[in-house]
Amino acid sequence: MKKYEELSKEELCAEYEEILRKYNEFKAMGLTLDLSRGKPNSDQLDISLPLLSEARPREKCFSINGVDCRNYGVLDGIPEMKQLFADMLGIKTEYITVGGNSSLQLMYDTLARAMLFGVKDSRRPWCKEPVKKWICVTPGYDRHFKMTELFGFELISVPMTPTGPNMDMVEAIVKDPTVKGIWCVPKYSNPTGNTYSDETVRRLAAMECAAPDFRIMWDNAYAVHNFKGECDELLDIFTEAEKYGNLDRIFYFSSTSKITFPGGGVAMLAASPANLAHIAQFLGVQTIGYDKLNQLRHTTYFKDRATLDNHMKILAEFIGRKFEITLNALEGLRGLGIAQWTEPSGGYFVSLDVLPGTAKRVYNLMAEAGVTLTSVGATYPYGIDPEDKNLRIAPTYPTDNEVALATEILVVAVKLAALESLVK
Amino acid sequence: MKKYEELSKEELCAEYEEILRKYNEFKAMGLTLDLSRGKPNSDQLDISLPLLSEARPREKCFSINGVDCRNYGVLDGIPEMKQLFADMLGIKTEYITVGGNSSLQLMYDTLARAMLFGVKDSRRPWCKEPVKKWICVTPGYDRHFKMTELFGFELISVPMTPTGPNMDMVEAIVKDPTVKGIWCVPKYSNPTGNTYSDETVRRLAAMECAAPDFRIMWDNAYAVHNFKGECDELLDIFTEAEKYGNLDRIFYFSSTSKITFPGGGVAMLAASPANLAHIAQFLGVQTIGYDKLNQLRHTTYFKDRATLDNHMKILAEFIGRKFEITLNALEGLRGLGIAQWTEPSGGYFVSLDVLPGTAKRVYNLMAEAGVTLTSVGATYPYGIDPEDKNLRIAPTYPTDNEVALATEILVVAVKLAALESLVK
Repeated sequence: MKKYEELSKEELCAEYEEILRKYNEFKAMGLTLDLSRGKPNSDQLDISLPLLSEARPREKCFSINGVDCRNYGVLDGIPEMKQLFADMLGIKTEYITVGGNSSLQLMYDTLARAMLFGVKDSRRPWCKEPVKKWICVTPGYDRHFKMTELFGFELISVPMTPTGPNMDMVEAIVKDPTVKGIWCVPKYSNPTGNTYSDETVRRLAAMECAAPDFRIMWDNAYAVHNFKGECDELLDIFTEAEKYGNLDRIFYFSSTSKITFPGGGVAMLAASPANLAHIAQFLGVQTIGYDKLNQLRHTTYFKDRATLDNHMKILAEFIGRKFEITLNALEGLRGLGIAQWTEPSGGYFVSLDVLPGTAKRVYNLMAEAGVTLTSVGATYPYGIDPEDKNLRIAPTYPTDNEVALATEILVVAVKLAALESLVK
Repeated sequence: MKKYEELSKEELCAEYEEILRKYNEFKAMGLTLDLSRGKPNSDQLDISLPLLSEARPREKCFSINGVDCRNYGVLDGIPEMKQLFADMLGIKTEYITVGGNSSLQLMYDTLARAMLFGVKDSRRPWCKEPVKKWICVTPGYDRHFKMTELFGFELISVPMTPTGPNMDMVEAIVKDPTVKGIWCVPKYSNPTGNTYSDETVRRLAAMECAAPDFRIMWDNAYAVHNFKGECDELLDIFTEAEKYGNLDRIFYFSSTSKITFPGGGVAMLAASPANLAHIAQFLGVQTIGYDKLNQLRHTTYFKDRATLDNHMKILAEFIGRKFEITLNALEGLRGLGIAQWTEPSGGYFVSLDVLPGTAKRVYNLMAEAGVTLTSVGATYPYGIDPEDKNLRIAPTYPTDNEVALATEILVVAVKLAALESLVK
C-alpha cells in the first residue's frame, strides 16, 4: 500500500469507502471493549495469590528484628521490605522508607508536605511562592500532571524523545528559579514505553538548577516490568546525583502494585538521608505507621531477587502476548504515513501518534464502535494535546481475544479518521 | 490512713522513711517495665489471627458488588466495609469513606487538605489565615495536639469534665472567628476514659460558631471498646448536628486498629455528603484507592454486628483484667488527699492526677526504678502540663504480672513524690 498522501483523489475515495464499510461492520457488532485501563486482568492477579497465604500464624507475624507486625510502630518499614526494594531497584536500604499500598499517595504526600513546609532546601513553603512551575514530559502520566496542577504549579511541557525528555530544553528551563521540579517515569515510561538513556540520567543528575530546592520526582513504576528478552538498563540516579553533589535532588518512588496486587501492594519513597531526616519530623505526626503485615506478606513470598525475577517472568508471558497482538495489529498502519507508535519491551502502554488533528476523531469512532480508549489529551498537561494526535493504548486488562478485536478496530478507526481528514 | 496534709511533721517523716525504703527495694530489683504504650499486647492480637486467613482464594477476592479487590479502583471503600463501620458506629453508610490502616493519617490528610484548599465553607485555604486557633480538650491525646501545632494553629486548652469538655468555655471560645475547630475523643476518651454526655454532644452540635468553616474532629477510636458491663452510650453527633443545620461541621473518624491489628486494621472518615463531595475532588488526585483486600479480610471475618460484639467481649476479658489490677493498686492512694484518678469502663487509659507539682518527679522516680510512663505534659498542648499533675497510665501492653508490679511501684512513687513535696 502506498502512503495515503500519495494516493489520488479517486484512490482515496475508494479506500475511504472500503474502510468505512469495515468500520460499520465492527460497529454493527455492538461490542463493549476497553483499551483504556493500565491495569492487570484477574488472570494475571491469580499468579500472586499464594502471597495472601503468607504471614498468618503468630510466629510468622514478626519481622527479622523481632517486631510484631500486627502492632503499632516502625514508621519507615520493616528491614526486609527495605531490602526487597533495594535489591529490586539497586539502591541503598538507607535511602528507603516504606509506605502504604500506593506510590501515588506517597507522591501526593511529598508534594503536599513541600507545599505546607517546603523541602529540605526551601526558603519558604511552596504554597507561599508567588509563582511556581513544574516540568512535565509529554506524552506522560495524567495523574502526575493533575497533581501538580491541583497544587497550583504552572505546567511546562517538554517532549519525550527515544532517550528520555529533550534535555536541551530541560537544562534551559531549570535556569528559571521558579521551576521547582520535574516528573519522570524513567523506565518503560507511561505511555511511550521507552527508558531514559545513561546520558539523560546523567544530565538530570548534573544539571544546574536555579531553584536550590528543585526536585526530580523519579517514578520508577516499571523497574522490573519487561516482557520481552532482557530488561532495559536504567542508570542509578542516586549514584549519578551524588557524583555531582545533587543527592538531595531526588525523590524516588516505586511499588509492587504491578508486581503483586494494584489494590494491595506495597509502595516506597527513597531519598537521601538528609531528605529523609527532613521528612521524618512531619511523617511522625502524620501516622503511627503503615501496614507492616502486608510488607511481611511480600517479603515472605519474595524470598530473594531470584524469586522476584521468576515471578516477573511468569507475568511477562501474560503481558507480552497482549503487546504482541497489539503490535501485530498496528502493522496494518505501517507505511501509510498516518501513524507512528512505540514498540516497548516493558511497561503497560503503547503510545500511538495518529495524523495530527485526528486523535479525538479516532477516540469518538472507537467509542461509537464500543471500544473505550484513554481520553485524548490525558497524556498532556491540562488535558490538552496541542496537536490532537496522541493515543495511549493499554492492552493488559482485556483478554487476548478482546485485545485482538479491539486493536483491529483501532487500525480501521485510525485509517478512517485520516481518510476523512484527507478527503476533505 | 489519714490524709497526708493532716499528718504531723513527725508522722510525715516516718511515712517518708517507710515509703523511701519500699521505693529503694523496688529500685534494687533492676526492672524494665512499661506503662506508656496505649497498644494491645501480642496475646491480645492472637485473638484476631483467623482474620489473616480470609480473602485468599480467587473467588473470595471479590466484593459484594463484583469488584476484584486485588486490582485498582474503588476510592471510597467496598460497600460491605462501609456497612461494617455503619453498624459498628450507628451512622449512615452514605457518610462513610474508607481509608488505609490509620485513622490518624486520615485526620492528617483532612487537616492538610484544609490547609491547602480549605474545607467546604472556607473563604480561603487555612494556610492563608493570618491567625488560626484550635480547641484542645485537656488532658487529651498528644498526637492530636501535635498535629494542629504542626499546622500552625494556636492551641487553646479547655478542661475535660466527667461529662466531656467544659461546654461553657467551648461555647464562649467559638465566638472567635479565628477558632477553626476542636479535637474530641467522645467515647472512653484518651486518657480520662469517660464518655461525652448527651447534653455535651447536643451543645457541640448546636453551638453557634463564628467561623463558617468550624470543624469538629470527632475521633471515635473506642466506639465498641468497653471492658466492663454495658457499653457507654454516645449520642450520634450526625443526627444532632443535622437537627441544628450543622451537619457539615462534623469530620468523624474511627478504625479497627484496636479491634483487630493496630498495624494492619482499616480506618474510615465519615462526613456529610456535601463534605464528601468537596473532599472527593482532591482525594481522586491523591490516590487510586486504598487496600481493598484488607477491607475484605475484615468484612469476611466480621460477618455481622453480633460477630464483632462477641470478638470485643473476648478482648474485654484481656483488657478488663489489666484495668482491674491497675485500679486495685491505685486504691492504695485512696484517702491520702494526694491523688485522684478515673475509673473507666472502656478505652485504653487511666488518667491519674497526682499532687500538683509532682507529676514530673513521679515520672523520674518511675524511670529510675525501671518503669516507663508516658511523658508528663504529653496530654497537654505544647507538651506542657501547667499544674504538673497529670499522668497517663496505659496498662494494656505489659503482662498481668508486669502491670501488677508496675502499678504497685507507681503507688509508692506517687506517695514518695508527695511526701518529698510536703516534708520540704
